[in-house]
Parts: sequence; structure tokens; C-alpha cells
Amino acid sequence: MKIDAAALPRTAALAERLAELHDIACAAGLLGWDREANMPPGGQEGRIAQMGTMSRLLHRMTTDDAVGALIEDAATELAGRPADDPAVALVRVTRRHYDDARCLPDDFVRRRADVSGRAHPAWVKARAEDDFGAFAPHLEAVVDLNRELAELYGYADDPYDAVLDRFEEGATTAEVRGLFDALQATLVPIAAAIRESGRAIDDRMLHRHYPVPDQQAYARELAQSVGYDLERGHIGTAVHPFAASFGRGDCRITTRWYPDFVGASLFGTLHECGHAMYEQGTDPAYARGPLGRGASSGVHESQSRLMENIVGRSRGFWEARFGGLQAAFPAALGDTDADGFYRAVNKVSGTPIRVESDELTYNLHIVLRFELEQALLAGDLAVRDLAGAWNDRMAALLGIVPPSNREGVLQDVHWTRPSFGYFPTYALGNLIAAQLYEAAVAADPTVATDLQAGSPAALWSWLGEHVHQHGKRFKPAELVERATGSPLSVDAFVRYARAKFSDVYDLEL
Amino acid sequence: MKIDAAALPRTAALAERLAELHDIACAAGLLGWDREANMPPGGQEGRIAQMGTMSRLLHRMTTDDAVGALIEDAATELAGRPADDPAVALVRVTRRHYDDARCLPDDFVRRRADVSGRAHPAWVKARAEDDFGAFAPHLEAVVDLNRELAELYGYADDPYDAVLDRFEEGATTAEVRGLFDALQATLVPIAAAIRESGRAIDDRMLHRHYPVPDQQAYARELAQSVGYDLERGHIGTAVHPFAASFGRGDCRITTRWYPDFVGASLFGTLHECGHAMYEQGTDPAYARGPLGRGASSGVHESQSRLMENIVGRSRGFWEARFGGLQAAFPAALGDTDADGFYRAVNKVSGTPIRVESDELTYNLHIVLRFELEQALLAGDLAVRDLAGAWNDRMAALLGIVPPSNREGVLQDVHWTRPSFGYFPTYALGNLIAAQLYEAAVAADPTVATDLQAGSPAALWSWLGEHVHQHGKRFKPAELVERATGSPLSVDAFVRYARAKFSDVYDLEL
Repeated sequence: MKIDAAALPRTAALAERLAELHDIACAAGLLGWDREANMPPGGQEGRIAQMGTMSRLLHRMTTDDAVGALIEDAATELAGRPADDPAVALVRVTRRHYDDARCLPDDFVRRRADVSGRAHPAWVKARAEDDFGAFAPHLEAVVDLNRELAELYGYADDPYDAVLDRFEEGATTAEVRGLFDALQATLVPIAAAIRESGRAIDDRMLHRHYPVPDQQAYARELAQSVGYDLERGHIGTAVHPFAASFGRGDCRITTRWYPDFVGASLFGTLHECGHAMYEQGTDPAYARGPLGRGASSGVHESQSRLMENIVGRSRGFWEARFGGLQAAFPAALGDTDADGFYRAVNKVSGTPIRVESDELTYNLHIVLRFELEQALLAGDLAVRDLAGAWNDRMAALLGIVPPSNREGVLQDVHWTRPSFGYFPTYALGNLIAAQLYEAAVAADPTVATDLQAGSPAALWSWLGEHVHQHGKRFKPAELVERATGSPLSVDAFVRYARAKFSDVYDLEL
Repeated sequence: MKIDAAALPRTAALAERLAELHDIACAAGLLGWDREANMPPGGQEGRIAQMGTMSRLLHRMTTDDAVGALIEDAATELAGRPADDPAVALVRVTRRHYDDARCLPDDFVRRRADVSGRAHPAWVKARAEDDFGAFAPHLEAVVDLNRELAELYGYADDPYDAVLDRFEEGATTAEVRGLFDALQATLVPIAAAIRESGRAIDDRMLHRHYPVPDQQAYARELAQSVGYDLERGHIGTAVHPFAASFGRGDCRITTRWYPDFVGASLFGTLHECGHAMYEQGTDPAYARGPLGRGASSGVHESQSRLMENIVGRSRGFWEARFGGLQAAFPAALGDTDADGFYRAVNKVSGTPIRVESDELTYNLHIVLRFELEQALLAGDLAVRDLAGAWNDRMAALLGIVPPSNREGVLQDVHWTRPSFGYFPTYALGNLIAAQLYEAAVAADPTVATDLQAGSPAALWSWLGEHVHQHGKRFKPAELVERATGSPLSVDAFVRYARAKFSDVYDLEL
């Protein structure tokens, strides 16, 4: 990050050290990106060693006493400056990262790696064999680690606050609970109304044959047309798609390509584009430093969901673009029209699987996980009772009983590591997305008209100014309030979802 | 590298430190691989910073006093063991690397980066504009750096010994001069006899339209069929092809694809496969350590030239495979036969460009560079007289006068950095390749019969035992003598080239 060394020599010294750490983190990150996108299977053993060494090196360098001294020197130098001064924000973010890394004893770090290392293959096997009992002891160890983490990080009210704060700086369990309670109060009846209406949407055309090279060509064109800068981007292939950036000049995405389902590549590409375009839009002044990333997991997710759902599953988007899609896949889409395609990609699926669910009920899948994580952490729920609790809540929230634990409590990889607090950010992302979108439309009417013509250009321009450029400068709640004029609430999402699914299902929801 | 910690605790401690350095070097190396194979243009600025930081970090960690102490401790522990003990070899290679890195003052390292950083774009521009005068001052600075390097490294007889030894451990200028004098004494008349015979080979079929996706599919099949293990390999695309490895489980190649010239992808793929298969064949016990690489630049090049030329441009190889190639490219090769194709890929080209030259005259291009580098370093030739000297030697060695400096003294990138001593290893590679091949055929007759049937399997098996598995355990001269029973000479190459080009040109050479 650029700091005027004449005016702020100590802060500049910190920034210089952080730039080195950023470079090393990029090298470590590239090992991870490459493992998913390029590495041959034979590289696995060596790569584990390389990633382990780099991770220990980074931990050692990040937690060095000298870094602590640089932070305190810079803080002294910046005393009296406002919190939104980028230099002050740099110190805030760096200190948080430093304190978090310093408070984990070596013994804990080793045990965490050990527990996760064994839990992952056990989960793969348990899921394949639909055997929750076999995974339960591993999950108990993971819950214990989460509990230990909460104590190590510290918290004021609720141990869950501590783990949540790692992913969503400043968010509290009470706030999230308030939002999620409001959300389920509205969404459960809407989802039930759709279910009970008996209205069926035909989405079989999404599951026809879509040649992979044609999908790749279309995805590239789609990504560019929504504003993803391929001069500073790259589209790779990965089994579990993700976005990864190595500075704002190199923000990559990966996509998966199924020959018999076009939805994965279309909406996966849009989703990851949202993430990548966020980081492509950070202030160049923040390069090689911790401010040049997204504000939080929730805010990052808001950008991917905006692109995937609010833009990419909108009526206008496909009314403007369906002709082009049809021309790219004439055999699969010859008998479909824009309206039919729009409805198909918004079908409320009634699936027990989170990653296959729709924009509406997805949030209920998250509410369920938040409730269960909290109860596990608080000791109000035992792991041995988890599968039953899962199924009970699925029935209550979604009216679904998972046919197996494989399609229930065993479906997610997240609980193979102590990452409690991460799930809620998915739904927070949806709420933030809707609130940002509503504010953008209010501020600039061309946001809506552009989108009706298939283009997110005006929306992305507004987001660039109010969200992207700031990187990690503001805490997520402050960023949202600055951008939208209000604290985060469920209102915008509820209005958005009600209107949209009324349209999709021809119902008064 | 695996060392028994109970028996050799100090050597094991050294090996453990080297394993970490290896991992970090892999992360740094991946930044370089990725830059050529995947990185979008916008990543350039960030990548320069990342590579610079990683390079400084590695230098700092490699030259740490603690590494020196580990080396000396291990050496003490290993006293009395024979030089070919892998643990002793580990100390030898590590000490060499450590001493080399320690003897370069920071100021020199900075100036080297500075001179090269400016020389490269100046060379690009000078070559484009055919303006040797514009590059000359940069080259003078590069010559000075080479001279300084020689003094810093130290030498017994000839300053060129010092720079040569960096790439070819233990080789001396006097030895190389002896080999190259013998080589030119034989090859110049052979090349002249071919030139003067007036025999013409039609190679136009190589320059027809070859669809790139078909070339990619064929290259993949070709690579696997010569034994490149794609479970531990990867074929990427790069403008300047290279091989890169991140441990023996991940040895990659890159290739370039020209739609109007099939030679680049065919022989480029085979060449890089030779490099990659060498490292795929190193002893697993040497993993994560400096012994798990090739013995030297020359020995590495011998493996790529074996695959590209001795295997890939042999009559038997194409007699067995031409049908398959023709089936892959029916439009381009429908009117050609195996004999015509074999002759075309062995045409003695009479080009002034090294990288476009053939297996025979390539060596004379190298002899020329070796002579000029030596004369520049010794102060016997001034940079201002270099272009003239280049053209004079081209005429004498190859009977060619380059039509421009762009096709003469400005053609290679190598002299934009202080890398004197590297060029000779290309021709040494050819000599080593021929001597190894002759020894393999003598030891196992199936080497020749296999190859006549299109397969290098028996040859590669012999090389695996006598060359690949040993990695850097032996110095190159010792490796060659152990494998072939004789010190390196030009005899095998001369016999090979005389027989082959007599066949290609139907002449008694």
C-alpha cells in the first residue's frame, strides 16, 4: 500500500513489511490455486509439504515481534487521525490479523491440523457410506476445537461471537440471530405457499447435452460481457469452483463444466465473476497490502450473489440475452424461450441439498446451520443428537425430510475443520446484496434500465464507487450503512424475493 | 531427502532445512511457471514484486549463517565416507550452492538486477530495429558483470572457468575448447560437403496448415507414448517453451503451437519431455532436496536432445509412427511418406538462426558463441567489434553471412544477463547424448531394435538406471564416465552424425 514515507515514515515502514508478506502470501496462494487448476495427481504429496512449509513460514513472519513493534509505531504516528483514514484502517486490519495469529499456541495449531487432516477423509467415507456415526467422533473433536478457538480469541457475550467475528468483522451473534429470525418468519411462509400452490416449472432443458467447449466459449463471452476484465483475469477449470486473486491485476476464477447441465457453468461463472470483479475494483493505492481485499466474507459473498442471482437470474438479463444463448446451444434450447428459461433458472427446487437449492430457500439452509452451530458450541446440542435435530429443522424450515444423512447432516465439507461462523456469511451476503441493489436503483435509475437491457454496467459502476474501491477500509456493517444509508436488515431482500418469486410463479406472495 | 536421523542426526538436520528451502523454492518457481503459462497481462507488475520478494527471501534463507553451520556439522559427521555416498553428495552440492550465494555482495546482486532489467527491453528494441549500436553499451555492462562474477567466484586458470563451472560443475574452459576444436574440425567439412552436394530436401509439408487443437491432441499422445508420465506431468502452453518441476511427482512441460508449422510442437514437446522425464526418474529418496534435480545444464540438455533428436528424428521412429501422424493430419500429410518426412525433419537448413538450425550445424552455432564469450571475457574482443567477429566466424564455420544483425549477433536473449558459460552446455548436451546412446546400444541391443519399432522404452530404461535416478549425486563428468565407461569425447557424436546425415542425404560423409 502506498504511504507517503516523508510524512509517515513509521506507517510506511509497516506498509513495506506488509507488501513483502503480501507477496509471500500470493506465492503460497498460487500453490493452492494451481493444485485445483493444473497440478497433476502425482504432485499431491509434494504440494502438501510445500503448502505446509509456506504456511508455517508466513505464520512465523506475520507473528514476528518486529511486526508487532511496527504496528505500535505506526499506531502512535497516526494517533488522532479518523478511523476511516486508510492508514488507520491499515493498522486496524493488520493488528487484528496479528493478534489473531499470535493468540493461537503452536500446540493448538498442530492439533487443529491434525484433527482436520483426519476429519476430512473420515467425512468423505462417512458421506459415501451414509454413516453419521462414523463421522460423529471427528465432529466432536471439531466442535471442541471451535470452542477452544472461541476462548483463545475471546468474546464479550457469546462464544459464537468470537468465531463469527473472524469472518465478519464486528458482527455479533445477537444481530445475526435477529436477522435470521426475521428472515425465516417471512421466507418459510413464502416457500410453503409456493410448495403448496402446486405450480410446476419445467427446467428439463437445463439438463440436456451442452458440449463443454461451447460452454467454455460462452462462459468466456458471458464473463467479459458482464465486465470481468480478462486482461486482469483468467478462467480455469476446477472441481470445486472458486475465485483467487494475486493482486488487483490478477483476479482469477475457476468453473466446472458438466456436459449434461448448463446451470453449473453459467451461474458458477457469474458467481465467481462477482467475487473477482470485487477485487479487480479495489483502489490501486491499496495494492500489495491487506486493504486490497474484500471487506469480509459476507460482503464478498454479496458481490457474487449480486452477479449470480440479482443480475444473472433476472428476467431482463435473459430477455436480452436468451437469443445469444440459444444460438450457442441450438440443439438444447431450440424449443425454449426467454420466459421459460428465466423461470427454469429460478425454480424453487425443494432439494435437501444446500448447493443445489434456489435463491429463496438457500437462506433457510443457512439459518438451519447457524442455529445448529450455535447450539453445538453452547453445549445445548450434543453431536449424537445432531442428525435428528438437522432433520427436525429441515422439516420445520423447508418442509423437507432428507432421505439420508448423506443428503442431510453429512452434505457439507465445512464441519471437517473448525470453521464455525462461516456459514452465516452466505445468507448475510444475500441480504447485503439486496440492500445494495435497492440503494443502487434508488440512486441511479439506469441501474434498473441497464439491467433490463441485459447489462450490469451501471450497477457495477455504483458498486465500484460505494463498495469495491474501499477494499477492507471499512468494517462490513459500516460499509453497508455508508453505501445504503441504513444498517443491514432483511427488508430489501424480502421485498426483492417476494416480487421476484411472485413473478416467477405467477402468485401473490 | 531421506536421511536416517538416528544414525546421522546432523546430516538429517541439514536435510530437514533443505527440504524447507526446497518447498519455498518450489513456490517461487511456480510463480515463474504460472507467469508464462497462465497469468493475465495485468498480473505482470504484481508478479515482478512477488518474484523479487521470494528471490530475496530465498537468498536470505539460503545464505543464513545457520545453514553454513549445518553444512559444516554434517560434513564433520560424514568424514571418511566416500564421495559417491548420497549424503556426502548432498553436502557437496549444498556447500557449492551456499558458497556461490554467499560470495555475491548485495551491491553486486542489485547491480546485476539493474543491468539485466535495462538490457532486456533495450535488446528487444535493438533487435526489432536491427540496431546493434543501441544494444552495445548494455552488452558492455553485461560483459563487465560476467568478469566481476568470475572474480567473485574465483578460478585457477581462466576466468571463463568460473562462469562455466556454474552451469557445468567441474568443467574447464580448456576441456571444452578441446572438445569444440575437435567438433568443428569434423563438422565444418561435413556441413560443407552437404551444402556443396546440391542435394535438396523438400520440407514444405511441415509448413502446411496443422489445426492447433489437433496438434495438442497429438502432442499429448506422443508425450505419453514416449513414456512421459502425465499422472506426474502437465502440458501447458508458453511462447518460449520450457520444462519446470516441483518435485518428481510434478514435472511439467510447455509447448508452443503454430498453425502453419508442425515442427515446433512435435519436436518442442519431445525436447521438453526429455527434460521432464529426467526429473521424473530421480530417486524418490532424493525428494525435497537438491539431489533430486539434473546433474548439470549439459546433462539435462543431453536428455532433451536424446528425446528430440536421437529418438525423435530417427528413421525408425517415423517409419513406425508416420501412419498415425498422417491420420491425425490427413490434409497436410496425405501426399508424404515416412521417408520423406524423416528427411524433412533432418534437413540441414543453412539458417543463420541457432534455434532454427538442425542437429548437425547447431553445434557450430554454439562453438561460435563459446569462442566469442571467451574472447569478450578475456578482453581479447571489444563489444564494438563483436558484430563483425560474429559474421566472420559464421562465414568460416557455417558458410553463412547473416543478412542483418537481427539474424546475427542480436538473435539470442542470453546476453541480456550475465550468463556466460551457459551456451556451451547446449553442445555438451549433444555430445553427452550421443555417447550415452552409443553406450546404451552396446549394453542392450533392444535399445536399437525398440527404437526401430518407434519406442524409446529400452533406451529410457537404461538411462533411468545410469543417469536419471542419480540426480545430482555425481558431477557431470563422473556421471558420464560411470555410465559410458569413457570420459566425454566428440567421437560418438561424430560417428552418429556422419552415419545419420549420410543416410538423410544419400552421401558418403
